[in-house]
Amino acid sequence: MGLIKVGVIGIGNMGGSHILQLDKGYINGATLTAVCDRNDHRIEWVKNNTTGEVQLFQDEEAFLNESGIDAVIIATPHYTHPEVAIKAFARGMHVLVEKPAGVYTKSVLEMNAAAKASGKVFGIVYNQRTNPLYQKIRELIQSGELGEIKRTNWIVTDWYRSQSYYDSNEWRATWKGEGGGVLLNQAPHQLDLWQWTTGLMPKYIQAFCSVGKYHDIEVEDDVTAYVEYENGATGVFITSTGEAPGTNRFEIVGDRGKIVVENEELVFYRLTQSEREFNASYKGSFGQPECWKVDIPIKGENSDHLGIIQNWTDAILKGTPLLAPGEEGVKALEISNAIYLSSWLNQKVELPINAELYYQKLQEKIKHSSLSRTGNAVR
Amino acid sequence: MGLIKVGVIGIGNMGGSHILQLDKGYINGATLTAVCDRNDHRIEWVKNNTTGEVQLFQDEEAFLNESGIDAVIIATPHYTHPEVAIKAFARGMHVLVEKPAGVYTKSVLEMNAAAKASGKVFGIVYNQRTNPLYQKIRELIQSGELGEIKRTNWIVTDWYRSQSYYDSNEWRATWKGEGGGVLLNQAPHQLDLWQWTTGLMPKYIQAFCSVGKYHDIEVEDDVTAYVEYENGATGVFITSTGEAPGTNRFEIVGDRGKIVVENEELVFYRLTQSEREFNASYKGSFGQPECWKVDIPIKGENSDHLGIIQNWTDAILKGTPLLAPGEEGVKALEISNAIYLSSWLNQKVELPINAELYYQKLQEKIKHSSLSRTGNAVR
Repeated sequence: MGLIKVGVIGIGNMGGSHILQLDKGYINGATLTAVCDRNDHRIEWVKNNTTGEVQLFQDEEAFLNESGIDAVIIATPHYTHPEVAIKAFARGMHVLVEKPAGVYTKSVLEMNAAAKASGKVFGIVYNQRTNPLYQKIRELIQSGELGEIKRTNWIVTDWYRSQSYYDSNEWRATWKGEGGGVLLNQAPHQLDLWQWTTGLMPKYIQAFCSVGKYHDIEVEDDVTAYVEYENGATGVFITSTGEAPGTNRFEIVGDRGKIVVENEELVFYRLTQSEREFNASYKGSFGQPECWKVDIPIKGENSDHLGIIQNWTDAILKGTPLLAPGEEGVKALEISNAIYLSSWLNQKVELPINAELYYQKLQEKIKHSSLSRTGNAVR
Repeated sequence: MGLIKVGVIGIGNMGGSHILQLDKGYINGATLTAVCDRNDHRIEWVKNNTTGEVQLFQDEEAFLNESGIDAVIIATPHYTHPEVAIKAFARGMHVLVEKPAGVYTKSVLEMNAAAKASGKVFGIVYNQRTNPLYQKIRELIQSGELGEIKRTNWIVTDWYRSQSYYDSNEWRATWKGEGGGVLLNQAPHQLDLWQWTTGLMPKYIQAFCSVGKYHDIEVEDDVTAYVEYENGATGVFITSTGEAPGTNRFEIVGDRGKIVVENEELVFYRLTQSEREFNASYKGSFGQPECWKVDIPIKGENSDHLGIIQNWTDAILKGTPLLAPGEEGVKALEISNAIYLSSWLNQKVELPINAELYYQKLQEKIKHSSLSRTGNAVR
């Protein structure tokens, strides 16, 4: 099999980055064949910044029907990910979609069904999954080293944004333009890693979102979510764009110890026996299981976006397992949708949420959105 | 004025410790004059472990009426703190009460009223307030260094207890015997420091308590509480007796930076300007205020229980301001009562809570308590 002919649709920050990596030949087995964006300036940018022969499209249908590409990277606005992916699958293309998978699970589930029916390779740009630190956490949990999980806690408030950031584009931080705030635009990676490393999806969520707390925006910029898992474990996820300096600290407590990640350092507190066993057998007053503080080396580079695109290309060419299967994009989205729904209904919600109810509630938000235009700025 | 004649009522772990410190002459200006406990063994213990002349009582009324003491330290079971204190104030005594102030705010408010009416010196054994680390946090906040508070987060799960601990006394971890679990018995110090250092009481609380999650007990051993403050700030408090090794990490985010305490170390991340001002004036895309990581020396010793008793004695003798005024005991209790009430009602509750409603709900718990005896084990 020769080079995979790759097209990129949507030339914003991320699409532009993918275009450059492909054009420079950084991805083995793939060649940049076509790009698509409605915006003249962005097409001009591609002309001026790429060296290879690239077909330029401003019309989505023409891009999909006439470019002759085998595979497409979708970096359009969040809302449009599912519809573009479904069209691509219908034409027999492989798909790599930017995060978040979409804005509401209803459409993302349709995208997943289309992917499955097509049999094509479907990936999502969860580039933090290439970070060996999070891979190691996942390994410690999957291998049973940490034992049954009791509690998770992620404070990820290092997503500081100023008002000027939000003011830089009118679609930013609007229900109509982006479909959410910090949960949908800044924190999707951590929402994904939260469930990916632990292997646990919340069963119930009760969440508290503050809308426009630190900025003049119509969506949330501050969130605290409490979750309960099927096995009885609990968790908390806190994120904000209004704190400086932010925190990024992830703690996972298990029956055999505790993992703490802060400042990109992993510490594993390892019990020499199961706490549940200790609890059942100990006869003294104030004892607790022996605990070792273990330094675990983190090997390997964080290959990031490049790693995700290469892995997706290898999956197409050689059947390499995907690090971030596209179908898994719905998980982080399910969590963020549930957080919104809980906050709107002011009650605990069960996962999976009622996707239709969420869609309807979202339409109400969109109807009253301050974004007046019908179009999308970056497509 | 000569030596203050001090009596101690309730000779459990804490009462015994106070008796020894007084008997050894560690408290300037105070002398141990009388002790009281129903239990023969405990009275015997005092005989064998003290050197001074101490009157021994097994009857509370006789102790209060006949001992001739000026001041009393109350270390009886939690439930009885207010009733004993009220009797002492009625006899013109100064009072130092062990934590928690009581079990429900209704009776503690009555105790506070009696204290006020008596004009006597009323302290509470919040001995963690003598820790210079928490004093420094309070100072950084009171002086405005941290700026307006945005968020607080305390994970204090280093209260590990085994089943054998709970089994050691039948009154432990029962609604009838202790009136609560980890919130009332292990975490009151942190609940107090949480409000004392920040100067903020929550306005609303929504909490999630797990009853007997890790132990065969009828009260909670795992808690996550979400709070909202009057100024819009939010907070989370997590505590448990089922995790090993536990965490003790307190984070306070303000407009001018962030304070983090973990492993008894204080780090102050200090912004060179207010975040709110930066947000309003910055014109770029991804900038944030300059931040300095500041090491602040923690001076002085943690005088602990000794410091509290000395300070209370000095307040009686010289009018020294109390580090832990007894009237403030209701604050941490108000928080823990609100956490229980929110958990029982499965809804957000406003503070101050309805003290009468809480009292009634608690009576239902007591009615179904597994503790069958009518008496109290340690009094």
